[in-house]
Amino acid sequence: MSLNLHNKDFVSTRNLDRKTIDAILKESSKFDKGNYKKLNKTIALLFFEPSTRTHLSFSTAVRKLGASEIGFSNPKASSLAKGESFSDTIKVVERYADAIVIRHPLQGAAAFAADLSSVPIINAGDGANQHPTQAMLDLYTILKKKGKIDGLKILLVGDLKYGRTIHSLVFALSNYNIELSLYSPPSLALPERMVDELRSRGTKVNILENLDFSGQDVIYATRVQKERFADLEEYERSRYKISIKDADTMKRDAILMHPLPRIDEIDTAFDKTKHAAYFDEAANGVPVRMALLSLILGGK
Amino acid sequence: MSLNLHNKDFVSTRNLDRKTIDAILKESSKFDKGNYKKLNKTIALLFFEPSTRTHLSFSTAVRKLGASEIGFSNPKASSLAKGESFSDTIKVVERYADAIVIRHPLQGAAAFAADLSSVPIINAGDGANQHPTQAMLDLYTILKKKGKIDGLKILLVGDLKYGRTIHSLVFALSNYNIELSLYSPPSLALPERMVDELRSRGTKVNILENLDFSGQDVIYATRVQKERFADLEEYERSRYKISIKDADTMKRDAILMHPLPRIDEIDTAFDKTKHAAYFDEAANGVPVRMALLSLILGGK
Amino acid sequence: MSLNLHNKDFVSTRNLDRKTIDAILKESSKFDKGNYKKLNKTIALLFFEPSTRTHLSFSTAVRKLGASEIGFSNPKASSLAKGESFSDTIKVVERYADAIVIRHPLQGAAAFAADLSSVPIINAGDGANQHPTQAMLDLYTILKKKGKIDGLKILLVGDLKYGRTIHSLVFALSNYNIELSLYSPPSLALPERMVDELRSRGTKVNILENLDFSGQDVIYATRVQKERFADLEEYERSRYKISIKDADTMKRDAILMHPLPRIDEIDTAFDKTKHAAYFDEAANGVPVRMALLSLILGGK
Repeated sequence: MSLNLHNKDFVSTRNLDRKTIDAILKESSKFDKGNYKKLNKTIALLFFEPSTRTHLSFSTAVRKLGASEIGFSNPKASSLAKGESFSDTIKVVERYADAIVIRHPLQGAAAFAADLSSVPIINAGDGANQHPTQAMLDLYTILKKKGKIDGLKILLVGDLKYGRTIHSLVFALSNYNIELSLYSPPSLALPERMVDELRSRGTKVNILENLDFSGQDVIYATRVQKERFADLEEYERSRYKISIKDADTMKRDAILMHPLPRIDEIDTAFDKTKHAAYFDEAANGVPVRMALLSLILGGK
Repeated sequence: MSLNLHNKDFVSTRNLDRKTIDAILKESSKFDKGNYKKLNKTIALLFFEPSTRTHLSFSTAVRKLGASEIGFSNPKASSLAKGESFSDTIKVVERYADAIVIRHPLQGAAAFAADLSSVPIINAGDGANQHPTQAMLDLYTILKKKGKIDGLKILLVGDLKYGRTIHSLVFALSNYNIELSLYSPPSLALPERMVDELRSRGTKVNILENLDFSGQDVIYATRVQKERFADLEEYERSRYKISIKDADTMKRDAILMHPLPRIDEIDTAFDKTKHAAYFDEAANGVPVRMALLSLILGGK
Repeated sequence: MSLNLHNKDFVSTRNLDRKTIDAILKESSKFDKGNYKKLNKTIALLFFEPSTRTHLSFSTAVRKLGASEIGFSNPKASSLAKGESFSDTIKVVERYADAIVIRHPLQGAAAFAADLSSVPIINAGDGANQHPTQAMLDLYTILKKKGKIDGLKILLVGDLKYGRTIHSLVFALSNYNIELSLYSPPSLALPERMVDELRSRGTKVNILENLDFSGQDVIYATRVQKERFADLEEYERSRYKISIKDADTMKRDAILMHPLPRIDEIDTAFDKTKHAAYFDEAANGVPVRMALLSLILGGK
């Protein structure tokens, strides 16, 4: 079961099959219950871009596993400041560490590193492309909160064009029998080729004209970033804010997720509702990343 | 004895009673003698402001305890750079760590975090407000150097208005039978409401017109920061520098303390005198913080 | 044998004798084979200047030894930002750690720290002066790749004036029976007093007019930094780039080394040749630094 991941890169959810994802979720559940096995490995966290949750939860995962962390969270502190190439950095660090976790502002950086590296590369977010470990913790959160993934109605809201967590999530979800609804500003719609690919994989995809929470089991909200808009008026029209009143229009057991950081997509008053799942979602980053590191680096 | 601190926040010295402080000092002494017990916990160090001593001594304390450290010393490397709110950061990190140590430029940040967090918050300095772990190591230093706290004459020199170490120290000291003397530039005097509170607690407080070391058992010097003055001439008038000649006017066994960093309040030539206690004071940060973490997070 | 290093500073290769270097290389080989002994110490890494390899390999070494790392890789995150003096930083950190590893932009910083500190100081690069742990891993790389150091012809190319790795390397090599050739832009030649000193130590030193790889067993290339030149035309004339075609002019078993980061002194196509030794050289940083830390801090 874990053979699929052993010593493999983890750079995208696009080619993950259901069996592999199920194995990750099952293993995550073990770690979540405190079922730890020590991992005597050195893991490099190379963060070429700021991060709180992803960096801290990987860092926590590494330490709880009893593994060693090396790396940087601030590229200015590294030789990149002297103009060192990304590929030279990888070729050096692969000699220090048993696996490399990379966050990078450029799309494709993790795949490029995976081509170069003899040790497994784990993508912790590459530009607007993918964030596959986030997708695993998102699925784990859905499974834990809803008891299943199959049969759910899932609404994605916000920036579906540049949101890497969205891109990783939809391909991971396409392995399950779900109904996907999409709502975004027109200029931030999920790329058409992705919609086509999802449909060709058999996933039902609805494009919504209006933001409507009714009937949805899972609502997944993401940030709409000002920087994405040339026209500030369009940005103002595109913003959305989920408030406590919206809870009334949701199914009683609907959950609201968000990869965080949020700016003001979700009013903080909403945090106290039973729907709010985003902090538990962040917390799930630790057991899921422990599971991934163990499946990739662990014995047999 | 340790029940007072178990699973509690540590954000201010204002409400600490003598029994609790004595318990901390006693426990610090054990750790100082190398009497370690392993603490299998994850501790987050969130430093939203630069620090050497406090960060490094907490980091050393965590590692000597065998606990795990996560966090950041450079807020630019975290999602705060993306505009994440402080409260969201706390709500995420409380899910990763068993306790959170916070250094923040804003007064009240630690208390605010303590209100939000389900895990203990330890204040490592919040603006001009409090720095309670520094006060504990200051008291430990006095006790270790002088053998007692009761009965001592203690002089505080420098910026008593904005100095958070001063504010934490005076309230901690008010639990002991000491005589406090204060000397500062007029614009940087200890706030009157604090003087009143100290006196109402029974502490004898003298306001000095001139800097006079004679008769003092402990002299505690702090930085006078240029940025505090609108008028540069007043700043120049307000600066003081303790030189090796001043040692002649001190009691033979007087100690000179300083929370560091110093700029030029104490001439480096003074370092070689028997009075200089500031480096040992910094060193005491390790056992005292080990003791605090253990009392807050340890068993029973 | 290891008594020479026990509790000693390691700031320069200038006074290292052959016996000591041989002991370091022998110990490095043990660690390279996975022959670890746990080192229950706290080691401070104080990096006042950006670094990837040196910082990460020290960090990896510390963790593999089971020791504790404290410190910073970003001086802006420390009290230096508040104007603290370097000597006060050292006097505080020596009380937290069992040894201090320092990287600093100023020449002499490590020696200055060694004068102040009661715990061993390890120089991880001080301005254009020395980088002695790099020299040890360079010698270890030569020994591992060539089976010996005595009898080799070694060519140094690039900035020999400001290159601290070069300065440390030549004095370390002067303990062996080697023939040294030097090729650099005229303005970046090895300082004459160093050439004289090497010759007085009995090392044969050739100054080359043209870059000629033939007959050399080891070619050691370094960066030529644009910032060193007032005259951009001279910089352009001084640049060199070793390409895959140059491999034809090298001895069949010649190795090409580089302390990295490289900018464009070595074409990446060269990486695939059997001569390319620079990534393995970087990898050797881990066992060599483990050996050094153990010899300095280990028992007896």
